[in-house]
Amino acid sequence: MKKANKKTNAAIIIIGNEILSGRTRDINVVNLSTWLNDLGVKVEEVRIVPDDEIAIVHTVNFLRKRFKYIFTTGGIGPTHDDITSKSIAKAFKLKYGKHKEAYRLLENYYGSRNFSVGRQKMAMMPTKASLILNPSSGAPGFIVDNVYCLPGVPSILKSMLGGLQNKIKGGKKILSKTISAQTIESEIANSLEKVQLKFRKVDIGSYPFFRLGKIGVSIVIRSAYKKKIDDCYKEIVSFLKKKKINMKHEK
Amino acid sequence: MKKANKKTNAAIIIIGNEILSGRTRDINVVNLSTWLNDLGVKVEEVRIVPDDEIAIVHTVNFLRKRFKYIFTTGGIGPTHDDITSKSIAKAFKLKYGKHKEAYRLLENYYGSRNFSVGRQKMAMMPTKASLILNPSSGAPGFIVDNVYCLPGVPSILKSMLGGLQNKIKGGKKILSKTISAQTIESEIANSLEKVQLKFRKVDIGSYPFFRLGKIGVSIVIRSAYKKKIDDCYKEIVSFLKKKKINMKHEK
Repeated sequence: MKKANKKTNAAIIIIGNEILSGRTRDINVVNLSTWLNDLGVKVEEVRIVPDDEIAIVHTVNFLRKRFKYIFTTGGIGPTHDDITSKSIAKAFKLKYGKHKEAYRLLENYYGSRNFSVGRQKMAMMPTKASLILNPSSGAPGFIVDNVYCLPGVPSILKSMLGGLQNKIKGGKKILSKTISAQTIESEIANSLEKVQLKFRKVDIGSYPFFRLGKIGVSIVIRSAYKKKIDDCYKEIVSFLKKKKINMKHEK
Repeated sequence: MKKANKKTNAAIIIIGNEILSGRTRDINVVNLSTWLNDLGVKVEEVRIVPDDEIAIVHTVNFLRKRFKYIFTTGGIGPTHDDITSKSIAKAFKLKYGKHKEAYRLLENYYGSRNFSVGRQKMAMMPTKASLILNPSSGAPGFIVDNVYCLPGVPSILKSMLGGLQNKIKGGKKILSKTISAQTIESEIANSLEKVQLKFRKVDIGSYPFFRLGKIGVSIVIRSAYKKKIDDCYKEIVSFLKKKKINMKHEK
């Protein structure tokens, strides 16, 4: 695999015991990666860590120096197990306290009468953070340097991405083309490898599937260069035809 | 959060560009974590890395010294992008080559006439590895030291876990109890924190949900000690009643 341009890569940190324990199946990686991919940013690593300050601080500090963008999900709500904001302040050695703008936003959202101590906690974060507005439920996310902190609830996270679009500077968008072949991997492995060796700026992935009782292989061609995808695609289709393998073309 | 006993923890490494790109939504973390949890092993970190030898070698070598068990998923098939076996050999500085037992197994499975070069690649691995038998599709996984290498296809992975059961020595099983409360987190954050501070050997997680148009909070109580879960549960139910919050008890 070719390394992505260092200027346009990202890592995602999923924070939450519920994901590690298997209680909840993560969907935020899919949502974030797809969105970032459309902006020309390639996700190169994901880490899932527990609600544990040391783990969060260590992971953030390690990754933020190695990737252009870091996205965290989870742990910015009002309960005792929401420790992301405090941990980010620690990671950056920043003051953690009442963020004035976040406080004002939340007070407006709930009305000052209903702005309970529990809700006020959501205004506690690195005091110098920039906010990420939340059109679904008031409580903002925040940005410190290259670290973007988002909530764990997928629908809320998604609703906040629109407001971030302008802050992310991506490279060339990664395009892809998929062929669904009615075969098994070992039948096409050699031919596929030959094509891969010929096309250096293209990543060819091969993924067996078992759908509705049918078995097959999805061949995914990915590259920033449309012409190279098309050329590579033609060669794959050609060897599949020669082998008399049925195929379906997906997007 | 309390640190799990070092002797009974695990990390999972998901290997695959298709997961990082968002093309495929991972389910192996849920399946492995749930299975390990039943064996008394707590998953404390997950990393998703690309089909890239340097990334795999580095991640395996970092994690295998810090966790009792490491599970990898993906990249052990016959195509050019399946580089897990080779990378594990590199990580352990072991000879990579034709594994005799794996070769024999695969030859039996396919029949010597159909045992093509593509298929033979699945017998290439660290030559000293122990095998993990595969009742679904022949190609075995393997074990080197504390690293367990499994395939990426979820149904095949699941079918191989039964044969591993005896090799994993877990600690006390982590039990859990869940309350579904018709409320929002900020209403219960303070009361919940008080209960958490009182029960040290219990992890209380709070997870907002939006299901079928209803909003609510799942409160999950986790511990290796049933009695402590029950006591903690009573206190939570008691403050929810006082607050006149409707609740439903899950498993």
